[in-house]
Amino acid sequence: MGIVVQKYGGSSVADADGIKRVAQRIVNTRKQGHDVVVVVSAMGDTTDELRDLAEQVSPLPPPRELDMLLTAGERISMALVAMAIAQLGHKAQSFTGSQAGVITTGEHGKAKIQKITPGRIENAIADGAIAIVAGFQGVSEDTKDVTTLGRGASDTTAVALAAALGAEVCEIYSDVDGVFTADPRIVPTARKLDRISHEEMLEMAASGAKILHLRCVEYARRYNMPIHVRSSFSTKEGTWVLPAPSENEEAMEQAIISGVAHDRSEAKITVVGVPDKIGEAARIFQTLADAGVNIDMVVQNVSAAATARTDISFTLPREDGQSAMAALAKVESEVGYERLLFDDQIGKVSLIGAGMRSHPGITSKFFAALAGAGVNIEMISTSEIRISVIVDSADVDTAVQAAHTAFGLDADEVEAVVYGGTGR
Amino acid sequence: MGIVVQKYGGSSVADADGIKRVAQRIVNTRKQGHDVVVVVSAMGDTTDELRDLAEQVSPLPPPRELDMLLTAGERISMALVAMAIAQLGHKAQSFTGSQAGVITTGEHGKAKIQKITPGRIENAIADGAIAIVAGFQGVSEDTKDVTTLGRGASDTTAVALAAALGAEVCEIYSDVDGVFTADPRIVPTARKLDRISHEEMLEMAASGAKILHLRCVEYARRYNMPIHVRSSFSTKEGTWVLPAPSENEEAMEQAIISGVAHDRSEAKITVVGVPDKIGEAARIFQTLADAGVNIDMVVQNVSAAATARTDISFTLPREDGQSAMAALAKVESEVGYERLLFDDQIGKVSLIGAGMRSHPGITSKFFAALAGAGVNIEMISTSEIRISVIVDSADVDTAVQAAHTAFGLDADEVEAVVYGGTGR
Repeated sequence: MGIVVQKYGGSSVADADGIKRVAQRIVNTRKQGHDVVVVVSAMGDTTDELRDLAEQVSPLPPPRELDMLLTAGERISMALVAMAIAQLGHKAQSFTGSQAGVITTGEHGKAKIQKITPGRIENAIADGAIAIVAGFQGVSEDTKDVTTLGRGASDTTAVALAAALGAEVCEIYSDVDGVFTADPRIVPTARKLDRISHEEMLEMAASGAKILHLRCVEYARRYNMPIHVRSSFSTKEGTWVLPAPSENEEAMEQAIISGVAHDRSEAKITVVGVPDKIGEAARIFQTLADAGVNIDMVVQNVSAAATARTDISFTLPREDGQSAMAALAKVESEVGYERLLFDDQIGKVSLIGAGMRSHPGITSKFFAALAGAGVNIEMISTSEIRISVIVDSADVDTAVQAAHTAFGLDADEVEAVVYGGTGR
Repeated sequence: MGIVVQKYGGSSVADADGIKRVAQRIVNTRKQGHDVVVVVSAMGDTTDELRDLAEQVSPLPPPRELDMLLTAGERISMALVAMAIAQLGHKAQSFTGSQAGVITTGEHGKAKIQKITPGRIENAIADGAIAIVAGFQGVSEDTKDVTTLGRGASDTTAVALAAALGAEVCEIYSDVDGVFTADPRIVPTARKLDRISHEEMLEMAASGAKILHLRCVEYARRYNMPIHVRSSFSTKEGTWVLPAPSENEEAMEQAIISGVAHDRSEAKITVVGVPDKIGEAARIFQTLADAGVNIDMVVQNVSAAATARTDISFTLPREDGQSAMAALAKVESEVGYERLLFDDQIGKVSLIGAGMRSHPGITSKFFAALAGAGVNIEMISTSEIRISVIVDSADVDTAVQAAHTAFGLDADEVEAVVYGGTGR
């Protein structure tokens, strides 16, 4: 049997008991004959506590030092997991990101994995040991400094390592049973999906489903790596994230809609009264790009012929709101717009499903469901397998419930599940 | 001006306020024109907390993993100190033991420094930065695994780094004002020493004075590195530990006795009725050496001619008591002794002073003081600049006070001082 990579989030290793439970599960997998490589996050709230400590010392700490600080978190959890495995009579060795060969770019706090050279991991496996690897961290090729991959990126470490090692599967453990058709806190009748394609999972992650990190799914899709999303608190099968099935399989097995995702983390900016000339929109978005702001959805209203002016609305991560407004204010005279509007009372609701590719009428059914529930749509954006709308934040729950019901996703029975954060 | 190495113990960096205070002191030194390299311990009780966590997971954790775990402590404190310095507008970079080039042997938990290759530290200094280095840790040359140097060894890191960098001085900061003539908790009239020789400090450390780690003083003596022991809570001058003065200087400046040290961490084992034959004592101590037990003082009683048997007593670290007794029990028939006695109710009191070399009568004066105070002496051991006696543990305080007074060490006024642990 081949290599299994398992990733355990912070909630799974929150205390000594959790660590022992995780160790037992790892040993069980080993006993089934697999070589096991484990990626761990920091224990419980450790990362947040370290951030708090940094803030007490410096409101704007140097990114290199913040990475040095935060990487202590996984160091603690990985050593403890290795100890707990040894206590069960199995060989285990822990490795930092650097020791595991996770080579990254040099952007502290949001480094990207450039390559993985897992020589020490392979040696540990050859030596009969279970390798425990720190998630979320790596080492910069240029400066040899310790880097972090950004929040939630332990999932990415796990999938990238699985790809580099040629693993059979990457199991992502958290306190959630799998991927659901909607957030069960909003839709109690949401169902756990048995399988979902990389493509759909990508759209789910991009649309606000927090169960898997976006970059991790991108990585898995690129390398065709199966992911098994499951709970470390039960032995139930979770959700398999797999390469998309062929057309025929799809027609037979695939539901039209996989799920309804929502996202409350965005804000909307409207630039009112932009002169309707070629290049004005480009100038606005260049300004935002220069300020490092990531744009999500964009809508340009039809120009009122009388004024030859137009309104441009876009959504962006709420935390980028202040810097975006400041950047736009600086180019006010240059662009010649009339005023800026900022709205952080919005939410995004997305319908995801590869089946919609071949089924017409999905959009109208979705909009009809929202209209029937009294929800007003502010912006619309679509891809081949996703439709997203921006609504008032107060309407998000209603919209998610209405869409979930309209597309027949409601389960007959309510599953007992807590849909929480996944650690990182 | 040259390089100053400063070492801050755990009590000095116990919280965000402590870290900011330490950062300010570092920056002040920098402003005086020095290049500054800082060695830090883990914050407050972090190391003990991590040990507790390890114990919850495994009663006997693999040493490699314990080192991986414990080294997270300095990683946290060093990053925070670097952030606090940056916040004061100065450049700072933190370095792990491995990054700082602290190359050690492979014995986890008690590795020894083999060499220091501080290339990255020198580059940081050349770049105008203050370098913050994790104490207590290094990297094994053979396995490339992270090692720790053993409890209290951050002092050793600091002195070794100071020697490798050719620093002017190594300042060791703790919550104590300097080296005292005795523990002020026992002798309220103890005085702070302005200076003491490496040699005497070595005997003090070996005799139980906890202010400096033994290996650190050995290192300083070998490399003629001046140490300035001082408090991070005040700007007062502390105690300078310096190369021994020449004979003439010594006669003029040096007190006969530098101080009275005590040690409650030892136990005594007596092997009763050992056949008085050549090689029996050697066999006993070889047995103990094989069991990894460190022996301190040894006394062999005069043989009773009638029985041709003798008693051998020795002291050892109390925590080695069980393994020593077990090792000796195994060779009982081989050695043919009558029985073993174990006594952990002992204490060692030592008189230290380079002046005693040229002053006769010190020993008799010391013993007379103890006798006058009603203290019974169980064992005696002497070096050129030290006399140690083993007494009942209940008599330690009385013995220290009596010796301190007899040699005129009492101050006229009691200094306000807390004599606590120094972190590590």
